[in-house]
Amino acid sequence: MFFSFDGIDGTGKSTQMSLFVDWLRQRGREVVTCRDPGSTELGERLREILLHKSDTPIGRRAEMLLYMASRAQLVEQVIRPALDAGRVVVADRFLLANVAYQGHAGGLPVGDLWSVGDVAVAGVLPACVFVLDMDVHAAIQRRNREPDRMESQGLEYMQKVRQGYLAEAARRGEIVVIDAGRDIESVQADIRRAAEGVLS
Amino acid sequence: MFFSFDGIDGTGKSTQMSLFVDWLRQRGREVVTCRDPGSTELGERLREILLHKSDTPIGRRAEMLLYMASRAQLVEQVIRPALDAGRVVVADRFLLANVAYQGHAGGLPVGDLWSVGDVAVAGVLPACVFVLDMDVHAAIQRRNREPDRMESQGLEYMQKVRQGYLAEAARRGEIVVIDAGRDIESVQADIRRAAEGVLS
Repeated sequence: MFFSFDGIDGTGKSTQMSLFVDWLRQRGREVVTCRDPGSTELGERLREILLHKSDTPIGRRAEMLLYMASRAQLVEQVIRPALDAGRVVVADRFLLANVAYQGHAGGLPVGDLWSVGDVAVAGVLPACVFVLDMDVHAAIQRRNREPDRMESQGLEYMQKVRQGYLAEAARRGEIVVIDAGRDIESVQADIRRAAEGVLS
Repeated sequence: MFFSFDGIDGTGKSTQMSLFVDWLRQRGREVVTCRDPGSTELGERLREILLHKSDTPIGRRAEMLLYMASRAQLVEQVIRPALDAGRVVVADRFLLANVAYQGHAGGLPVGDLWSVGDVAVAGVLPACVFVLDMDVHAAIQRRNREPDRMESQGLEYMQKVRQGYLAEAARRGEIVVIDAGRDIESVQADIRRAAEGVLS
């Protein structure tokens, strides 16, 4: 069983993912966590290129394809073997993040992102994607660190990312939008409730 | 006008490309040369990961997507600006190399390679691709250096690559197969003759 957490930064993704993993383990599940991009040697090398501001010019198509390469390696090296072994995989971001950031907000054709993504993941997609959703201003205020390469693109961009997540959720059944503008326990309760339906 | 040179290693690609560029310049053309992967800062970083043997595990889908990312950057940063400025671009390898190596020889679906490639290059494809073709054994004997990561995969693999080039040439009009098992001058004469038709 494969779950992923997505949404703009500052929505409490890490906290909620961590609580969700605890809950899965308490229920006796073996859980493998990963982050996309990252979680493989190649992925961490690419993550360094992608997220840390550097002088290397990267166009938006090249950037998108680097995310896809990292994801392909993550599927082959981590996710597929874990699923084959009967484990539960919980990913911090996955393909939907590219669709929202590079597609809806970045201007690449959304259809191209899904089609390249299909090739990259070779059929391995989350059974359930939790999109933590909240007002963009509130999310920015909750962040307590410097923005990375992606996040520094401004408020309007973040609004488009948020709308992109919501637009995809409206047409894809595996995406569950969670109102993240509430207390931690209420948000987690909604996530567990949605997961119950998939796990049972 | 965009030309590329392709084929298995050892067929005299570099020599023929260099003579072809000289000829174009003698005819008063401004020429930009590049190599794929490479020729941008990002591309050279990825080339290092792709071609130089390292301990970083790279699956075949991730590898293919890294080639595509390097190519997307090459198109955006080098090839498209040169074409827009009226220059002639001559590339040492391009998308067809991925189709032959990762597709026909490597087992990835050839249709996936063309479709991801279409997204990567955003419509910028060579008007003419010269495939230098010769017997695989003869090509290996002409190489005077250690094989790189791609080439070290053996004779059978190289045979499949060659057959891949020929299969694509049979169905795509822009691919011109050149018999490279002859003297340098005869090979170059064929290349120039084919280019005349495209340039005029």
